[in-house]
Amino acid sequence: MPESNRSIYFATGNKHKFDEAKDILKNYNIKVIMIRKKAEEIQSDDLKKIARHALLKALESCKSPIIVEDAGLFVKTLKGFPGPYSSYVHRTLGIDGIIELIKNKSGREAEFRSVVAYGDSSMIKTFEGVVKGMVILRPRGISGFGFDPIFIPRGLRRTFAEMTLKEKNKYSHRAIALREFAEWYLGSHL
Amino acid sequence: MPESNRSIYFATGNKHKFDEAKDILKNYNIKVIMIRKKAEEIQSDDLKKIARHALLKALESCKSPIIVEDAGLFVKTLKGFPGPYSSYVHRTLGIDGIIELIKNKSGREAEFRSVVAYGDSSMIKTFEGVVKGMVILRPRGISGFGFDPIFIPRGLRRTFAEMTLKEKNKYSHRAIALREFAEWYLGSHL
Repeated sequence: MPESNRSIYFATGNKHKFDEAKDILKNYNIKVIMIRKKAEEIQSDDLKKIARHALLKALESCKSPIIVEDAGLFVKTLKGFPGPYSSYVHRTLGIDGIIELIKNKSGREAEFRSVVAYGDSSMIKTFEGVVKGMVILRPRGISGFGFDPIFIPRGLRRTFAEMTLKEKNKYSHRAIALREFAEWYLGSHL
Repeated sequence: MPESNRSIYFATGNKHKFDEAKDILKNYNIKVIMIRKKAEEIQSDDLKKIARHALLKALESCKSPIIVEDAGLFVKTLKGFPGPYSSYVHRTLGIDGIIELIKNKSGREAEFRSVVAYGDSSMIKTFEGVVKGMVILRPRGISGFGFDPIFIPRGLRRTFAEMTLKEKNKYSHRAIALREFAEWYLGSHL
């Protein structure tokens, strides 16, 4: 792997996300610096739109190159809820609220989606990661954050909250999006 | 009341909201013209911030003077959920979802809040309306929209959805905000 002294900023109010990104990106020799600032998010069902908008806002006020990331848990039987509003819903209804909503329904299918948006002085670009799986009625684990304790990726037996950061980073939506980003970034910044 | 030929625009994708506004504002001789365009909304717990942001966006692309309005149902036992995301939550979880979330909780207190934001070439201003009441477990009525069938204003016995538009306009959060706006508008545009 080529030596790289590249540094990028990551605007986020979420230390967990930063730690995950740092762990992924160091494999690509990309140094990531946290800008502890929640990017402005619009209301939309489309994570990519939200991430692009947040990135444009971040570019107005922060140093670049910079990334922002938006993610959500989309539960099929709830028509995609809580989706882009996962953070708000976690804060108000919590995990118990999601369990309450699904416990009398049959379907358990869900997916976590992540969009990473990158921008510098000349361009912006987005990268998406999706991990399919199921939601469960009894939370398990204390790692990670958000709805990690009730999500099990397809083919696995443990929730994201039962995994170490490194394990979660093998499978997660965010890790997929970040690796996509990193591969493109290294390829175009040799 | 002074004769007024004032016309204002109302940017909204919601015909119900427009009809309510038209009914209120005609009492003030203010003519309102619908611009069928959902204003861009940011994610925030603060309706006023959302309305101001939407107004600034509307001013960029639409004629003025213009108003936008943002509203939400804040259920106390759900820590304010669905709040600013009422429209998204209505579309995904629906009324049944809210009932599911509250049925095993004790509190039924809730309030509807509305913020009307007005803007022209020289200034912007916001007006707020709040109506306190309770949410119920069996929807009643078919008028209105959104969560109207499960909300009863304090001191009354019928839901918003069991009222005619004119009755709802006596009590509603939106009507309160719109009347505040109209009184200010007439006072400053004689």
